[in-house]
Amino acid sequence: MGAIIVADVGGTQMRVAALPRDGIQPIKHQIAPTQAPKGSPFERFVTLINAVWPDEAVEAISVATAGPLDPKTGTILSAPNIPEWINFPLGERLAEHFGVPVYVGNDANLALLGEWRYGAGQGHHDLIYITISTGIGGGVISGDQLLLGHRGLAAELGHITVLPGGPLCPCGQRGHLEAISSGPAIARFVNEILAEGEASILEPGPGLSARDVAKAARRGDPLAKAAYTRAGEFLGQAMADFLHIFNPSIVIFGGGVSRSGSLIFDPLKDALYKQVMDPGYVKNLILTTTKLGDDAGLIGAQVQAQIRLSSL
Amino acid sequence: MGAIIVADVGGTQMRVAALPRDGIQPIKHQIAPTQAPKGSPFERFVTLINAVWPDEAVEAISVATAGPLDPKTGTILSAPNIPEWINFPLGERLAEHFGVPVYVGNDANLALLGEWRYGAGQGHHDLIYITISTGIGGGVISGDQLLLGHRGLAAELGHITVLPGGPLCPCGQRGHLEAISSGPAIARFVNEILAEGEASILEPGPGLSARDVAKAARRGDPLAKAAYTRAGEFLGQAMADFLHIFNPSIVIFGGGVSRSGSLIFDPLKDALYKQVMDPGYVKNLILTTTKLGDDAGLIGAQVQAQIRLSSL
Repeated sequence: MGAIIVADVGGTQMRVAALPRDGIQPIKHQIAPTQAPKGSPFERFVTLINAVWPDEAVEAISVATAGPLDPKTGTILSAPNIPEWINFPLGERLAEHFGVPVYVGNDANLALLGEWRYGAGQGHHDLIYITISTGIGGGVISGDQLLLGHRGLAAELGHITVLPGGPLCPCGQRGHLEAISSGPAIARFVNEILAEGEASILEPGPGLSARDVAKAARRGDPLAKAAYTRAGEFLGQAMADFLHIFNPSIVIFGGGVSRSGSLIFDPLKDALYKQVMDPGYVKNLILTTTKLGDDAGLIGAQVQAQIRLSSL
Repeated sequence: MGAIIVADVGGTQMRVAALPRDGIQPIKHQIAPTQAPKGSPFERFVTLINAVWPDEAVEAISVATAGPLDPKTGTILSAPNIPEWINFPLGERLAEHFGVPVYVGNDANLALLGEWRYGAGQGHHDLIYITISTGIGGGVISGDQLLLGHRGLAAELGHITVLPGGPLCPCGQRGHLEAISSGPAIARFVNEILAEGEASILEPGPGLSARDVAKAARRGDPLAKAAYTRAGEFLGQAMADFLHIFNPSIVIFGGGVSRSGSLIFDPLKDALYKQVMDPGYVKNLILTTTKLGDDAGLIGAQVQAQIRLSSL
């Protein structure tokens, strides 16, 4: 039985593990910071892969990473917080170096693959995954098939317009879901209202985080509660759109903001159930959170390798 | 070589044809009104099928029809303008009567299948179809697979919120694309502005149609032009969302409003190209109109039969 090398490369850290061909119990596992004084991110990544290289024959390397990328060629178009990786042929470079097939996938897509096979989405055929943290990312499986699109750029569920002319999104457009309901967007909204003189136990400032706002909301601060209600209501509006578009049987939420519980989910569900156009869309619909936590990317990379190897 | 009976059942008329198993040249073809003084729509449908029944062995009956339906069971949940068909087990009733497999599909989905195999979408793997007429309907093919969703209710592309709190949609929700950019929505907008006293060559009234507005726009009427610009801009905003969600290589437009040409497509394209978040989404993207015209439903029903029969 061979092994798969799986990796989850983020802006802050890289995680690499060797897994048995058909399982998810690591044979070896290593973590390292993505940026460091010595060597390029690619060089450190190669070192990390060598460190977990197992005695078993390696059948493939499978990588989850952020940002727009081409899953067919394994080229990273741009990686958030890894400025070296612009139009970077990661798949090709790794395949040359290690002499095995390399598969590269978007981290949100792969997190969904992981949840589908090993986590909250087992047994479902039509799933939506939405991760709400610094940004808002998405993944969709429809009819047991991952939605990729022509160039692998599909499922950018954070980048739909929920409020025309609304707040500026990090992508440069206005009024996107990510510009209203992500963690930084929640903090920005509070800062803006504080600047207008609204009373609150929160202090304005660039260091204010969605987590601070959640703490204040739990202590009863009306502004903090209103900020989460606004974010949740727009998420609910967008979720109604996504139900009409995809008609899933389950929606899985991940990311830091999803851990704020009823603060975000109560207004989300209220808006969603009000705005869905037919009860058929919510009949037996499951709304839940991720089960795999920090391992979703690694496990999803394993599922990606299993799917790609079985289609050879 | 056997034959397929294909049908396109609308609120106004029913079209039925017998086609060779692997072709789209009709052996026989019949049209009849859906509503008539004598007999139920189902009885007239059966009569029409009998009228085209060929000498060849019939391998399947494949039906395109409007409205929410379950493609797995062939049950119509509700059919616009056919009040008799609420929770109507059309597939089961036809299979009992004729003793052959029956496949039932949403007309927009099947129009896309037709365009994909025989029309404007040939050779593409990731397609969006959007039909703009009395309502706004959609179909999506992603990775060569029709998007159906858990209950077959997916791809309702007219029912996403493009303007929170906006005009009332026929579905009961507010601010949906269909409530702003469909034919009746364009006429309603003109009527509302005329009621405010705006000057125009158009006369207000319930009989005013999007076609009347298009004629006035071509004669230079500013209100009529503004009405199409508004509809086109919101379509462009929604299309940017759909590109971020599906990353297709082609978008095919159908329906009466799409025949108004640059009146709707100029503002649509302006808004789309401004609101897309990365040039990768529009690189080599094809925006076009349907090729099959009124035959799209019948031809799509044939493709549905071919796909379902080949997966047996």
